[in-house]
Amino acid sequence: MIILGIDPGIALTGWGVLNAYSRDKFTFIDCGCIETHSNSSVGVRLAEIHNKLQFVITQYKPHIIAIEELFFMKLTKNILAIAQARGVMILTISLQQIPLFEYNPKLIKLTLTGNGNASKKQIQDMVKDLLNLKTILKPDDIADALAIAICHINNIEW
Amino acid sequence: MIILGIDPGIALTGWGVLNAYSRDKFTFIDCGCIETHSNSSVGVRLAEIHNKLQFVITQYKPHIIAIEELFFMKLTKNILAIAQARGVMILTISLQQIPLFEYNPKLIKLTLTGNGNASKKQIQDMVKDLLNLKTILKPDDIADALAIAICHINNIEW
Repeated sequence: MIILGIDPGIALTGWGVLNAYSRDKFTFIDCGCIETHSNSSVGVRLAEIHNKLQFVITQYKPHIIAIEELFFMKLTKNILAIAQARGVMILTISLQQIPLFEYNPKLIKLTLTGNGNASKKQIQDMVKDLLNLKTILKPDDIADALAIAICHINNIEW
Repeated sequence: MIILGIDPGIALTGWGVLNAYSRDKFTFIDCGCIETHSNSSVGVRLAEIHNKLQFVITQYKPHIIAIEELFFMKLTKNILAIAQARGVMILTISLQQIPLFEYNPKLIKLTLTGNGNASKKQIQDMVKDLLNLKTILKPDDIADALAIAICHINNIEW
C-alpha cells in the first residue's frame, strides 16, 4: 500500500511516500518539499501548491494520504495562511478521490517516540532509524511528512 | 465592468454580481449562496465550494472578484475551517486568472455606511437602498457579498 504523508505549510510543505506491507514492514520511496515564495501573490502560491501536489499524486499514485491536523494555541496571520493552503491540499486530494486521514501532532509524536511532547530532533532521529536512512532528513517538514505516514501505518487495522 | 463579491464561509458562502459603470452607477445582476452540509467530509465540502464557485464564475464571467479578508479575534476550529474554504476560493479564482481584491470587514462597513462598526442590519439596509431592491437580502452572507462588491467599486480609480 502506497502512503503519502503531508506536513502542510504555505512557504514549505513537506511530503513523503512509503510503501507499507504491515505495521512493522514499510520502505521509503521518495520525499520532497513544495516551496512557494512570499513575494508571489497568495493566489499564485495556492495554485503552485495545487499543481505541485497534483504532480506528486500523479507520479506516486498513493492509495492513502495522511495529513497533519492544524493545532495552534494562538491566532496569527500565518496560521490563517497555512489553513488556506491546507484547504487547497484537501481539495486537490478530494478531486482525485483518494482517501484522506488526519492526525494531530501529539498522536504523531506519541506514535513515533512514545512521547506526545517529543522534540523535532527526536522525530527526525526516529524517522531516520525506522526508514534505515543514512542521515536525518531536512528540512523538518520532510521528516514530519514521513512521520505522519508512519503514524498512519501504526494506527490502522492490518 | 462585472464584479463578483464573495463573503467566504464553510457552511454558507454568499456571492453577488454587479455591473458597475462608475463609482455612483452600478446595477444588480444576481446573487446566491453556496451551501455545504456539516455531515459531509471536509474534502467533499471543499470540492462542492470549488465546483459551485467555478460555475458562478463561468456563468457571469466577472472581470474582477472582491473577497472579504478574514479577521478574527480568537482562534477556534470554525475559523480554521473557514480559512481552508477561503483558500479553495482563492485557488479557484487564481486558476481562472481573474484579478482578486481583498477588503477587510471594517473598510467594507465604513465604505457603505460611514461607520466601521456598522451592524449587520445597517449593511443590509444600505445594500437594499444602493441596489434599489424591494426587500433586504437574506441570509446576511448574500448582503455581505454585495457589500464587498460595492466596497470595491468605491475604492478603485475610475
